[in-house]
Amino acid sequence: MAQFINSKEDLVTQAIDGLIACSGGALQRLDGYPHIKVVTRSDWDNSKVALISGGGSGHEPSHAGFVGPGMLTAAVCGEVFASPSVEAVLAGILAVTGKQGCLLIVKNYTGDRLNFGLAAERARALGRKVEMVVVDDDIALPDLPQPRGVAGTLFVHKIAGALAEQGEPLETVAAAARTVIEKVASLGTSLDTCTVPGSPKEDRIPAGKAELGLGIHGEPGVEHVPFIGADDAMMRVLEKLRSQADAKNCVALLNNLGSTTPLEMSVLSNAIADSGIANFVIGPAPMMTSLDMHGFSVSILPVDEKELEALQQPVPMAAWPGLFSLSGVATQPLPDGLTPIAPIPSKNENTKATLEHIADLLIDAEPALNALDAKSGDGDTGSTLATAARALKGSLDRMPLADLTQLFPALGNELSQTMGGSSGVILAIFFNAAGDACAGGANVEDALQAGMDRVSQVGGAKVGDRTMIDALQPGLSALQNGLKSAAEAARSGADGTANIHRAKAGRAAYVPSENLKGHNDPGAEAVALVFEGLARGL
Amino acid sequence: MAQFINSKEDLVTQAIDGLIACSGGALQRLDGYPHIKVVTRSDWDNSKVALISGGGSGHEPSHAGFVGPGMLTAAVCGEVFASPSVEAVLAGILAVTGKQGCLLIVKNYTGDRLNFGLAAERARALGRKVEMVVVDDDIALPDLPQPRGVAGTLFVHKIAGALAEQGEPLETVAAAARTVIEKVASLGTSLDTCTVPGSPKEDRIPAGKAELGLGIHGEPGVEHVPFIGADDAMMRVLEKLRSQADAKNCVALLNNLGSTTPLEMSVLSNAIADSGIANFVIGPAPMMTSLDMHGFSVSILPVDEKELEALQQPVPMAAWPGLFSLSGVATQPLPDGLTPIAPIPSKNENTKATLEHIADLLIDAEPALNALDAKSGDGDTGSTLATAARALKGSLDRMPLADLTQLFPALGNELSQTMGGSSGVILAIFFNAAGDACAGGANVEDALQAGMDRVSQVGGAKVGDRTMIDALQPGLSALQNGLKSAAEAARSGADGTANIHRAKAGRAAYVPSENLKGHNDPGAEAVALVFEGLARGL
Repeated sequence: MAQFINSKEDLVTQAIDGLIACSGGALQRLDGYPHIKVVTRSDWDNSKVALISGGGSGHEPSHAGFVGPGMLTAAVCGEVFASPSVEAVLAGILAVTGKQGCLLIVKNYTGDRLNFGLAAERARALGRKVEMVVVDDDIALPDLPQPRGVAGTLFVHKIAGALAEQGEPLETVAAAARTVIEKVASLGTSLDTCTVPGSPKEDRIPAGKAELGLGIHGEPGVEHVPFIGADDAMMRVLEKLRSQADAKNCVALLNNLGSTTPLEMSVLSNAIADSGIANFVIGPAPMMTSLDMHGFSVSILPVDEKELEALQQPVPMAAWPGLFSLSGVATQPLPDGLTPIAPIPSKNENTKATLEHIADLLIDAEPALNALDAKSGDGDTGSTLATAARALKGSLDRMPLADLTQLFPALGNELSQTMGGSSGVILAIFFNAAGDACAGGANVEDALQAGMDRVSQVGGAKVGDRTMIDALQPGLSALQNGLKSAAEAARSGADGTANIHRAKAGRAAYVPSENLKGHNDPGAEAVALVFEGLARGL
Repeated sequence: MAQFINSKEDLVTQAIDGLIACSGGALQRLDGYPHIKVVTRSDWDNSKVALISGGGSGHEPSHAGFVGPGMLTAAVCGEVFASPSVEAVLAGILAVTGKQGCLLIVKNYTGDRLNFGLAAERARALGRKVEMVVVDDDIALPDLPQPRGVAGTLFVHKIAGALAEQGEPLETVAAAARTVIEKVASLGTSLDTCTVPGSPKEDRIPAGKAELGLGIHGEPGVEHVPFIGADDAMMRVLEKLRSQADAKNCVALLNNLGSTTPLEMSVLSNAIADSGIANFVIGPAPMMTSLDMHGFSVSILPVDEKELEALQQPVPMAAWPGLFSLSGVATQPLPDGLTPIAPIPSKNENTKATLEHIADLLIDAEPALNALDAKSGDGDTGSTLATAARALKGSLDRMPLADLTQLFPALGNELSQTMGGSSGVILAIFFNAAGDACAGGANVEDALQAGMDRVSQVGGAKVGDRTMIDALQPGLSALQNGLKSAAEAARSGADGTANIHRAKAGRAAYVPSENLKGHNDPGAEAVALVFEGLARGL
């Protein structure tokens, strides 16, 4: 899979330089490329306890994105999914550690433990005061002697970071970090694996399944579980975390593992809010990612007042999403003035049958119109019209069917409420204008023509622009000669749109001409299908 | 493609509720689901100019994520890629517009223009003071009469929002918005299309190509261009924007279109910093996404002092990444104490030939060991060892080959500098301990055994844990009977790891037993291959 990188070799160094360049001078790095990749705070004066974390890259914004006042002093970055070397960690320690000493915050992976551990030994041999904590928050494999460190690490960064920034001594900062590690628990789930740069993507999750209890380095998950939807996926994660959430104040950290969209993350936020598992939330945001993994993790931390306060301290790094109370959804009543005066229903079997017929024609045409729209747009013209047609059929008993002057605007109001996109408004304009014309004494044909004229004026489209008007205009013009003539004229107009390779209005105007060639405009096609259906009779 | 949603119908309403639930009480919504989806500031008192934006969903965090002090007062959300209805926009206007009036900020799409435009008319008819601006920043199609509105809209939100927050009158706020719209230009590029929920993904971008000049609703790009890498892709975007960047102060807004990883976005940040096109940057961050599109866009705005100040004003919404100056990459020199004292080179042709032989064996085994590692890990064992072996071969002339007491730690230091991951450290521990033993008078076999004991102790692994020790321990034990015996013992140990279905140490400990069955541990296999190669002779 193609990715926005230049080469595997330069990937991490270029990414670090990009991060630093966009930091507004807040970050700098050690001059040790390519082996030594250490990002540090530019404003650091060694006067407080330094916090150092790091590990393999591919988890961005961890860890360099959290370097700054109130969180990390330095991040030691390895290549993608590979621990940094002892020398790199040692360089980080020596660069930022003053008399107050430093705390190494390490995720529990053999490589990180070894490299950070040996670097700590070498730094101590050089006279530095170094403490190290190992985060092992993953509960995916409950019987594992060495659980992995995953997104719960962020709690340690933030709480220890706030204390260090306040000037607390190393012993206090390290003890607070160990308490957090003792309490925090995390679990992740995913719909797809990650893409390691330069390697093919593994395709190990079957359709209809999700992986539960995965790692952040492409390690397979503990189990494949059925994937039913977002709420169910969140429930499966939370049920394993719930026993950890036994406290007055609980914080849930909702982490995007990579390529889950903000829309999906918000649906998951809704599920977590409904679950009642926590009363505070951090995220949703990408914090400890696994490259482009399409998944999420939840970390739960029961907190005391001091920890809550430390988590609430604002920090200037954009990657930190902040902590917020999880609340119900506050609503305010709809304002007055929205509802047009409701028409008085009346009956006309003939009009009703005609409207039902038109609605059925559009419902039947749904797949064909969607397919046509997919050639030049987002493939939803058929669904938009069919949805509105279904709603229209259900509303006919509320309609003033016996009075066209009332019926036209009522149809417009109905369609503008049930149709999304521009179609609803265009039809509302059409029918409102037709109603106006009726009220002014016009017959049906003239009223419809008045509607079309108004649409053309507001929407800025005319015949030849490759819109529904290419069928509607000739169809309406021919209507005085009967429905059969109108149908033929509309069909001819619709088919002519296949030769218009440059749309001038509507969404197709944004589409290259090659994509338009040989396909009718879906709006014009819909108009032609309706005229033809009406000409065939009920 | 599976997504973390529950149903297409509830997608947008659930996502909005999730956003509100995680806002810490900062957001609320109108009680008009499902048709009316309007998110508003909870702290709004109608005393200033209200800013209202919106449009189809699928562009998160736009627009609801930018509702808050200093940006939007309300966001009117449609279904995915579908404009909200006139009623929804009208509800938003009536809910938040006080005596100071409101500004509608609309992206230039027919649907949005029509719905917001008609709602503005209806609100004016009800006595509200309403101005509307239409953002048309996309330069993908330079000859289009109606350019699209894309991520440049964020500049309008932020600058108009800062002015409104300061209490400026509607005329001033609207004029500032129009000035921004006049100046801003945007262009996007992508490696893959977006996945519309409930629809199959279109596969229209050929391998080796990128789409340039795409829209944010899945509309095809203007052209397919060769994709060479991140720097080239950024250059193709910037060269079309450069003519717009003619000012003393220019701001680049670097927008993630969806599923581009933070790592890739930082590589792109590096490219934009190097280009010199702007001296300020907003992002990289997802601001105006197109669902999960794997792409990015750049928006360029030349700014005066007042606009710069407005963009710099902090806002509490996590989705706004802030504005930073684009700077060079500041470095600090490496600290003292990193470099171990260099050994004095010496010659021994026999030792050199043996080390070269071992290195060649590992280089030859690269693909086989990678394949084996892919069964239970991240598939890089072979590459890690081969890379180190190549570096080792290049370093032999610098090595103290005539003195094992010096050679062992020198090998350890060399390997710990050139190997990533845990392997480098484990071998450093191994050789440092072997050197210590040599210095204490041990022979080669005993020194190597001492190295292995230390690795076992620090790494926490013993025979039977499915690590390299399963081959190394028996191999070293049999070494006193000659290389042939050692090779047989190591092979037997390595093959035995295929029957160990539960790793207790190393990365394989995180892998389910099904993935381990029948495959040798790659570390143990590497040890066996080396012993076998040595037994065969040079």
